[in-house]
Amino acid sequence: MVAYPDDLRELVEHYLGELRFSERAATEGLGEAMRYSLLAGGKRIRPVLCLAAARSAGAEPAVVLPAAAAIELIHTYSLIHDDLPAMDDDELRRGRATSHVVYGEDVAILAGDGLFAEAIRLFSERQSGEPDRVLAALAELVSATGVGGMVGGQYRDVTLGTAGTAASGGEHEEAAGIGVDALRELHGLKTGRLIAASVLVPLILAGADERAMGAYRRFAEELGVLFQIVDDILDVTGSDAELGKPHGSDERHGKLTYVSLFGLERARELAAESHASARTALAAIDAPTADLELITDFIHTRQR
Amino acid sequence: MVAYPDDLRELVEHYLGELRFSERAATEGLGEAMRYSLLAGGKRIRPVLCLAAARSAGAEPAVVLPAAAAIELIHTYSLIHDDLPAMDDDELRRGRATSHVVYGEDVAILAGDGLFAEAIRLFSERQSGEPDRVLAALAELVSATGVGGMVGGQYRDVTLGTAGTAASGGEHEEAAGIGVDALRELHGLKTGRLIAASVLVPLILAGADERAMGAYRRFAEELGVLFQIVDDILDVTGSDAELGKPHGSDERHGKLTYVSLFGLERARELAAESHASARTALAAIDAPTADLELITDFIHTRQR
Repeated sequence: MVAYPDDLRELVEHYLGELRFSERAATEGLGEAMRYSLLAGGKRIRPVLCLAAARSAGAEPAVVLPAAAAIELIHTYSLIHDDLPAMDDDELRRGRATSHVVYGEDVAILAGDGLFAEAIRLFSERQSGEPDRVLAALAELVSATGVGGMVGGQYRDVTLGTAGTAASGGEHEEAAGIGVDALRELHGLKTGRLIAASVLVPLILAGADERAMGAYRRFAEELGVLFQIVDDILDVTGSDAELGKPHGSDERHGKLTYVSLFGLERARELAAESHASARTALAAIDAPTADLELITDFIHTRQR
Repeated sequence: MVAYPDDLRELVEHYLGELRFSERAATEGLGEAMRYSLLAGGKRIRPVLCLAAARSAGAEPAVVLPAAAAIELIHTYSLIHDDLPAMDDDELRRGRATSHVVYGEDVAILAGDGLFAEAIRLFSERQSGEPDRVLAALAELVSATGVGGMVGGQYRDVTLGTAGTAASGGEHEEAAGIGVDALRELHGLKTGRLIAASVLVPLILAGADERAMGAYRRFAEELGVLFQIVDDILDVTGSDAELGKPHGSDERHGKLTYVSLFGLERARELAAESHASARTALAAIDAPTADLELITDFIHTRQR
């Protein structure tokens, strides 16, 4: 069991648990649906990363809790919409029925929409700091969320179809030549940008200069790649109980993954290489990075 | 034909037409789907209102174009999601096939998500002004969009079902006693808050004081009520060609409306009363309001 910055995770969990989204009886059910998905557990990697980067930049982690929570709300909204019947049509997530199974498709769509709006509201109303920095940090977050980020990546995912998934046996490397650029672009958008934003947002809030930002950015981008390779591996190797959903769902959906392109063994090597690159990028940062090291190791070795 | 501030409308239309959402080939199709719905025409009431309020507050209207466009993007996103099969299941809007009919349900959901994200991005990256004012104006907009506004109102709409729509003949006033509070709350959230935000956002950007804000807020709230009563009337009286969709869709969906609650004749009286109240509120504003008067009259007499 690799260590994890549990103090930061507890700060996040407590803050999320205290959030209420509905101020009136008429929308109480919507607020409940939003909390159902938000409080479904998980390691809170993005907001913990946000707090760890704040600490690394010399700020008090708790100061960036509104921004960190906003990132987790956006991540949760994306999971609800990705699980919809019109998208991946998944009925289980983290061992629990997905939002549309519990509340119906209409309410699930609105729970996602509501989480997105309340994320931006939380950030713009509650995040302290110089207004110009708060605004710039918010711009980084929504840029990572929109067409040049998460939403664009999901679009790529649903429209790419089964292209490039034909690889098997000795054909891996050849297929990789066809699909690896598309795969990197897809994941860079779909998961990479939001993970990178989790590191960059607290640095912008702390007023870090461009040189420092560059070192953190190189780390954050490599961490996003590592996260995705491991995610693809776990979908194949994880047990249903560990994953909280039936394993092998990527393959059933005909998804382009590191495992479908390269095979399991090569994907594991790529994960190890990516982990080493992320640690090298961390070592180049001229500031304390102990929590960020823990998170990097955790992402590499996690079982779910 | 009532006059309309066409100079402001042209500014809006041109600005929206120039917007591009995708910077890479992989997401070009998503950007196209977003533009399909955004550029479907309409009177652009919300952004024109935003520019008119800016002019009333002594600012150059063009200065608030990023904020005004952001509001129209959010309005467009809400229409795409409202039209989805899981919501109102509408196949026509402004005489054209709705997003999910043209692009499929998955892409339509993402086009809505993308418009929301790009709206906030536009606002946070391109709206000029003191950063603290830009941040406060953005907070007002997302508050009007979230659970305490548009998304919450749509939730109320889909979950209220057919409650309170049984009114017919002499039962109107009695039924009104049951349903009118729910109706006002629903529409205040679903359409009223975003219309009010269209007026309030440019005032916050202009640094208006609390007293001036109060006068504009009273006008904006009444305008939202007027807009909705007329909308409900047009759904019954408008021709398919004028509406750009089959009329009577509220009734088919069993929606709670001013007409279902009060009958057509009383709804028309309520619209006239609401129009008079909005004009009275306008007269109390200590600043030029010529464009806002045009918009108020237009909203009352519009045929689509």
